[in-house]
Amino acid sequence: MALHFVDDSAAGAVAGDVVALTGSEAHHAASVRRVRTGEAVTLTDGRGAWLRGAVVAADPKRVEIRIDAREERSAPGRRVLLAQALAKGDRDELAVQAATELGIDGIVPWQADRSVSRWQGAKADKGRARWQSIVREAAKQAHRAWIPEVEAPVSTNELAARTGTTCVVLDPWTDAAVTSVDLPAGDLMLVVGPEGGIAPEEIERLTGAGALRARLGDSVLRTSTAGPAAIAVLNARLGRW
Amino acid sequence: MALHFVDDSAAGAVAGDVVALTGSEAHHAASVRRVRTGEAVTLTDGRGAWLRGAVVAADPKRVEIRIDAREERSAPGRRVLLAQALAKGDRDELAVQAATELGIDGIVPWQADRSVSRWQGAKADKGRARWQSIVREAAKQAHRAWIPEVEAPVSTNELAARTGTTCVVLDPWTDAAVTSVDLPAGDLMLVVGPEGGIAPEEIERLTGAGALRARLGDSVLRTSTAGPAAIAVLNARLGRW
Repeated sequence: MALHFVDDSAAGAVAGDVVALTGSEAHHAASVRRVRTGEAVTLTDGRGAWLRGAVVAADPKRVEIRIDAREERSAPGRRVLLAQALAKGDRDELAVQAATELGIDGIVPWQADRSVSRWQGAKADKGRARWQSIVREAAKQAHRAWIPEVEAPVSTNELAARTGTTCVVLDPWTDAAVTSVDLPAGDLMLVVGPEGGIAPEEIERLTGAGALRARLGDSVLRTSTAGPAAIAVLNARLGRW
Repeated sequence: MALHFVDDSAAGAVAGDVVALTGSEAHHAASVRRVRTGEAVTLTDGRGAWLRGAVVAADPKRVEIRIDAREERSAPGRRVLLAQALAKGDRDELAVQAATELGIDGIVPWQADRSVSRWQGAKADKGRARWQSIVREAAKQAHRAWIPEVEAPVSTNELAARTGTTCVVLDPWTDAAVTSVDLPAGDLMLVVGPEGGIAPEEIERLTGAGALRARLGDSVLRTSTAGPAAIAVLNARLGRW
């Protein structure tokens, strides 16, 4: 069954209320998914509200749903974030998409020294909006009640200066493994470099600020493969799966 | 440092021998990677031989390398294979590519009931050749000494009839988790369905033949995300990482 997103005006809906999908959500539901009157659907506001209901009117501009049941899905107590280096081709976007399916709690676009792609000026807003759109679609596909936030892009210095989150830098040149490295309590941020790898001086800046280093096996992984695989291992280790 | 593939004629080379890259390997080394005389390179036959040497002649049609050292990298004692359902778009190819980077030992193209893509007649040879090419490039990118074999495509009945390998079917509708399900000794084959999921009667046929079912978390995963994530979990569980 497809999941649909409601906007904030419908986020407080309870059983018996009728809420509407509008704009692209209505178009997607009525014209792409072809929902019909009477059909059971699931809705979320992307902030934990999980609504089940039945379609009472289906028009490409407005789809109305009567809510039968509402539950609140709690946010994870311990967050796992992804600092994804901007990468060439669509490799960073594939990483962001898979990470969202796999349950990442937030995404930080990282302008690494070796990132071929640069988000500067207006490109930063455009790039972030594009990642937000990818995350939103992936969260819908994966039936997530929480849409991860895509933060503003950061430099390596900004990443190193961030507090309250322990960075785990994926680095093939260390002995510690993601599968066994000691993880401190609290929020974690997985740091994944661009196709050319993370520059040694960047790793120094990050570890100087308290980051851990860890590797995934002995293979050289594409940036689109490394982050999702590390998230899978962390999900298993943290008891999320 | 880039990895290059040598053909069978050079697979027996030892220190002091000069071996040649020809065809597309020579073109890739000389014109794309732009290797130069004197440069250190690593070669493999994709069957465990791992050769280090230095370029003594670099031409787009023929690159010659003097071997300095040879080692044999052993194949894993316990194999993990991927039965990947044919899927629409490039989702199956992305799965095959990431699985190869993550160390899969063999790939079985699976014509599942709900596979939108069909490999019939000449298309089967063409599809298999394309997957072989993707696997080869991914093995090179990941610096693997063993290139996984891409087998001929199989039907669900053929998959169920296969012996000597325990199938682990990724199925979101079971309570057992990939992170904790009991794994029998011997070779494993991860079975990943197409975008529309595995049909219930296919799951019955496979479990009737001894397959296990296991899920990855609570999310609905794309076929390109599910296999690689499950391989990461299995790598951790089997002590490969």
